[in-house]
Amino acid sequence: MRPYEKNPSAIYAESFATVRREARLDRFPPGLQSVAIRLIHSCGMVEVADRLAFSPLAYDAGHAALRRGAPILCDCEMVAAGIIRRYLPAKNEVVCTLNHPKTRGIAAGIGNTRSAAAVELWTDWLEGAVVAIGNAPTALFHLLELIDDGAAPPALILGFPVGFVGAAESKAELAANPRGADFIALRGRRGGSAMASAAVNALAAGLPEDRL
Amino acid sequence: MRPYEKNPSAIYAESFATVRREARLDRFPPGLQSVAIRLIHSCGMVEVADRLAFSPLAYDAGHAALRRGAPILCDCEMVAAGIIRRYLPAKNEVVCTLNHPKTRGIAAGIGNTRSAAAVELWTDWLEGAVVAIGNAPTALFHLLELIDDGAAPPALILGFPVGFVGAAESKAELAANPRGADFIALRGRRGGSAMASAAVNALAAGLPEDRL
Repeated sequence: MRPYEKNPSAIYAESFATVRREARLDRFPPGLQSVAIRLIHSCGMVEVADRLAFSPLAYDAGHAALRRGAPILCDCEMVAAGIIRRYLPAKNEVVCTLNHPKTRGIAAGIGNTRSAAAVELWTDWLEGAVVAIGNAPTALFHLLELIDDGAAPPALILGFPVGFVGAAESKAELAANPRGADFIALRGRRGGSAMASAAVNALAAGLPEDRL
Repeated sequence: MRPYEKNPSAIYAESFATVRREARLDRFPPGLQSVAIRLIHSCGMVEVADRLAFSPLAYDAGHAALRRGAPILCDCEMVAAGIIRRYLPAKNEVVCTLNHPKTRGIAAGIGNTRSAAAVELWTDWLEGAVVAIGNAPTALFHLLELIDDGAAPPALILGFPVGFVGAAESKAELAANPRGADFIALRGRRGGSAMASAAVNALAAGLPEDRL
């Protein structure tokens, strides 16, 4: 067996040093730099930094919302599972309504996916919330539709739906018109629950080096 | 708002058609082709097909193990959260010991990460199991060490640890010497919990088109 690094602090330090060495991070304001670094760390691809779209105050909006106790609304259970609870500054509620018993009926009623239907169940939490979408393009599209129809915008939308149908398009729609919310999104087909969780973790806690 | 596809069946069909059109899948035996397609679908990158390493009978070994009722051992909660329970053919147990109260003490004792320590708690389940690693290189390295030290090999190792320290190396070690287990692994830095879960889901249920 080849030797390997077993010390968690050394692993973190070497990982983040590699990211800083290889990624183009200079276009990001400081807070967003920590988000970009955690995103890269979650997927192993330094080049995703080049495809990040964001509003200039996105980090501040998300960080302040979490400190205020804002809930975190997730489109799937994997995103919720990836949020490191001990980082959250105000025991923030982590909400995923995808498996709520009402979603199937709502989906049939609105002619959309269960992921989109789940977003309809966010209304009580939505204003000022942090939204983390790591799976379904239809969840992001439908959230934007609900805001167009008068729903209060969240403080921040983390847009990381993934895949071949609607992912790139939903994130382009968000970046073109964020409808009063701040946002961070990865353009194109790539994304995923690990990135959405990583973005929340960065907003909550910055980088491990910030926590020493 | 631009129009978008809202029909789940149409989204699945168009997604998988895109993957089949763009990815190089001809080198895979049929079962592994469904695994490759679900992996690509989970990450939005067709080119990961070119970096998949596998033993020739990996699909059959994993599929048979699940039918036999093998447990699924996951290195992190996100992998466990991504496994679609209704697909599992024998109500298979999904096990994640990362947050077991003993892992911290074991990690200190063996001088390794909590992820590696969690693998020590798999011993009762390991023989004939399906192992799904979607986060920690040290979990994969330590599993291989335990097999070298006499632990019974699992039926199948799904190797998708991600990142900049040890991910590529642990997967190269697995592919060079799988120690009696079948395996599927993504070479290089890329990987992640969504891929590990997607591989389990493919072994359990094939593709949506297989289920019609």
